[in-house]
Amino acid sequence: MLNNRLRREELKSKIMSADDAAMLIKDGMIVATSGFTPSGYPKAVPLALAKRAQEGDKVEITIITGASVGDELDGALSRTGIMVRRYPYQTNKYSRNSINDGSIMYQDMHLSHVPQFIDYGFFGKIDIALVEALAITEDGGIIPTTSVGVMPQAINNADKVIVEINTSQPMELEGVHDIYVTEKPPHRKPIPITHPGDRIGTHYIPCNPEKIAAIVITDITDKVRPLAPIDENSRKISGYIIDFLEHEVKMGRLPKNLLPLQSGVGSVANAVLGGLVDSKFENMTCYTEVIQDSMFDLIDAGKVTVASGTSFTPSEDGLKRLLSNMKHYAKHCILRPMEISNHPEVARRLGVIAMNTAIEVDIYGHVNSTNIMGSRMMNGIGGSGDFTRNAYLSIFTTVSTAKNGDISSIVPMVSHVDHTEHDIEVIVTEQGIADLRGTSPRERARKIIKNCAHPDYKDMLMDYLERAEKGKYKHEPHLLTEALSWHVRFLETGTMKIK
Amino acid sequence: MLNNRLRREELKSKIMSADDAAMLIKDGMIVATSGFTPSGYPKAVPLALAKRAQEGDKVEITIITGASVGDELDGALSRTGIMVRRYPYQTNKYSRNSINDGSIMYQDMHLSHVPQFIDYGFFGKIDIALVEALAITEDGGIIPTTSVGVMPQAINNADKVIVEINTSQPMELEGVHDIYVTEKPPHRKPIPITHPGDRIGTHYIPCNPEKIAAIVITDITDKVRPLAPIDENSRKISGYIIDFLEHEVKMGRLPKNLLPLQSGVGSVANAVLGGLVDSKFENMTCYTEVIQDSMFDLIDAGKVTVASGTSFTPSEDGLKRLLSNMKHYAKHCILRPMEISNHPEVARRLGVIAMNTAIEVDIYGHVNSTNIMGSRMMNGIGGSGDFTRNAYLSIFTTVSTAKNGDISSIVPMVSHVDHTEHDIEVIVTEQGIADLRGTSPRERARKIIKNCAHPDYKDMLMDYLERAEKGKYKHEPHLLTEALSWHVRFLETGTMKIK
Repeated sequence: MLNNRLRREELKSKIMSADDAAMLIKDGMIVATSGFTPSGYPKAVPLALAKRAQEGDKVEITIITGASVGDELDGALSRTGIMVRRYPYQTNKYSRNSINDGSIMYQDMHLSHVPQFIDYGFFGKIDIALVEALAITEDGGIIPTTSVGVMPQAINNADKVIVEINTSQPMELEGVHDIYVTEKPPHRKPIPITHPGDRIGTHYIPCNPEKIAAIVITDITDKVRPLAPIDENSRKISGYIIDFLEHEVKMGRLPKNLLPLQSGVGSVANAVLGGLVDSKFENMTCYTEVIQDSMFDLIDAGKVTVASGTSFTPSEDGLKRLLSNMKHYAKHCILRPMEISNHPEVARRLGVIAMNTAIEVDIYGHVNSTNIMGSRMMNGIGGSGDFTRNAYLSIFTTVSTAKNGDISSIVPMVSHVDHTEHDIEVIVTEQGIADLRGTSPRERARKIIKNCAHPDYKDMLMDYLERAEKGKYKHEPHLLTEALSWHVRFLETGTMKIK
Repeated sequence: MLNNRLRREELKSKIMSADDAAMLIKDGMIVATSGFTPSGYPKAVPLALAKRAQEGDKVEITIITGASVGDELDGALSRTGIMVRRYPYQTNKYSRNSINDGSIMYQDMHLSHVPQFIDYGFFGKIDIALVEALAITEDGGIIPTTSVGVMPQAINNADKVIVEINTSQPMELEGVHDIYVTEKPPHRKPIPITHPGDRIGTHYIPCNPEKIAAIVITDITDKVRPLAPIDENSRKISGYIIDFLEHEVKMGRLPKNLLPLQSGVGSVANAVLGGLVDSKFENMTCYTEVIQDSMFDLIDAGKVTVASGTSFTPSEDGLKRLLSNMKHYAKHCILRPMEISNHPEVARRLGVIAMNTAIEVDIYGHVNSTNIMGSRMMNGIGGSGDFTRNAYLSIFTTVSTAKNGDISSIVPMVSHVDHTEHDIEVIVTEQGIADLRGTSPRERARKIIKNCAHPDYKDMLMDYLERAEKGKYKHEPHLLTEALSWHVRFLETGTMKIK
């Protein structure tokens, strides 16, 4: 079996234990890894590295990933204090806590910017690429597993490459990837994708075999994240979106099979996409970041013909379903480097319908995707900006309240801005939908309050708006002494409601 | 002479007075016009339309332009109450006042979004395209004058086209334009530009002659805007940028002739670009929106080989210089539709160095480009977002104080966000430069305060940061009760300083 996984004979001499491979990682290094959402990330070597620290070795490093990775990497290296700097996205509770207590320096970045930052040298020299692989080809090409992320740029730019060959990943994954990288300016060419199903590259990442410093054989499986069951609120949100899209088709503003769908990561996004199974749309395509469980439903129902992303991001059940039917799903799915899956050029050319989730939205349509109450990092912006700014239609969804109703997701002014009023066409909550196209800020405010806010907060929001409108400047009127007072009230009293 | 300006014989029957042409514009219509920065906009018909309103006719219309236009359009139609809705950018004091007093509904948009919003029908049906032209070709093609903006989309989507042939515009402009439009998704193809000098289209805008409802002959000249003389602060800012770019070349992160430059509109942007005349950089190129006076200096000095934009935006002196040397400048300049000049695809492919100006910047690197004290619209975001997000390097400049020192341009939290922390690599003031690449928010804050803030405000900013850092959540720490207090203090006391 190993011959199929490691097809270049001379590289067998590089096989070593995870402990030995971890010794290649030294204090102060910058390590770029595979992994995107907890999928296809290295596991054995990070665990061995964590053990070194527990045994007293001082190792402080920078980790650059595609997006979130599992506990064996983000968790283990946070708990041991090894990871002192982190780019560009995470969801692990230990790394999140370390970011919020100030012990990890974290830069939250647009995912499409990360590959070029690596290429441009903006992070500094990449010392080690640490990647999970399905197999290594005869000429040293590295075949990714369930995600691609920044693997190509990590491998191209690193001094040394450590490969974890993961034998738990089924060989049927071979061929699902399409690896294409851009040149650096001024030598860049157009990316020749005009349909989500276009294949433009190789099915492996080319790599100079001399750079491969260690090969570790492992069978640790991805620690995927659970998906919440689809609830009533998600069903309502999905319903409003489907009605809206049907109306756009009727008005001649969208083709019958829509345009390529992009859907964010997580339970609500999964549920929104899942609602399309029962819609009348046929022959849909997806050009997105992550392929979650509901995409398998759409493929099985014959509703989606092709799904392009940079990772499979299934739940535990979804992972079983994927791995046991890999041949079937591989026919409909393409995994690309995140530079390409999230590329502004392609997103805009294809005219994606972008659907992403917000933490909070303000009355003028600015969106906070990252920092709860302005300062507390949740996960990161991820790819939402890559798609939103370049979409045919950009839709943001949120449930209208959080914390049992004590937080209104619609506020006078968001406490942190990730997406501006210039970037968003539609807001949807379980209360309803606001189409913001062509609106001035004050028109926008009335639509959002009327259609999207929870009834408990509608009057308070209208009161704010009307009092703000009495000021001298009425373009986007705010009362700066009160704009953030809802957040302050929550922090002080535990509720945004006035007691 | 008219034969050269109007080369299709049958269209001569459509020549009429501006007053008659203005009668084609009815109450409730949506009118899309030429014009980008006060350059190449229609003048005779808007003036005639304003006269109609002054004589008691009720006409309320929506105006969609490329960007800002002159007083004959934005001013005259604001003063008479004709323009009740406006997209996507303006700089006229009367339209600005009407937006801020609530009488004009204004949506401030990314300029690259506007052409596709017209194509997609998101603004509604375009009733009339009102455009200034240099000439009309034998098959009805319309040759723009000193700007292109949204002319192609206006003409393609409008029911009727009104053309102002402006005989004050020199025929040497013929050939300077390169008109290329994209298809609507799912039929879009890659835009085949790989160098700022590439010509990919026609030198006129194709138009079905039957749609041309009126032709007005006029010679009213553009009311261009003055450029402030280059002052000490601008010189310092320019100097910091040049030093920074030289360092990037030395580190191998930029080619010797840099990458295509983009520079925003206005006096500071003009001065920053002007500083490059005395730099050691050679064979530079520009892929930008507007070609201002300093670009002529760079071309004359042999420093810039090609400048691509969507408009000439000279001062009054610059306009004389341009018109009297049109043949010379036409060899080095290309005017494109703003869909192409500002296209994310091309900006990212070419890897532009984006230089734009901020109204204020906060300690974490968010930028306000539009709303003074959160609510008062200045001009609009323009193309800054199109370039910034997709740049190789995104640089924002601002003088560190305004209003004789009573406003700090570096604040704890900006009162309006147009560009987020995810979009900006470098901040420059006359105090110094902060390179934000790879920084966490708190590292960023220290760099911005130390290098960019005015000495009068440094201690206050550090005090805010240090007190905010004592809170529980330290990723991007804010004191929400104080975050906007500097703006409140200015509004209440006339200064951000604590008396």
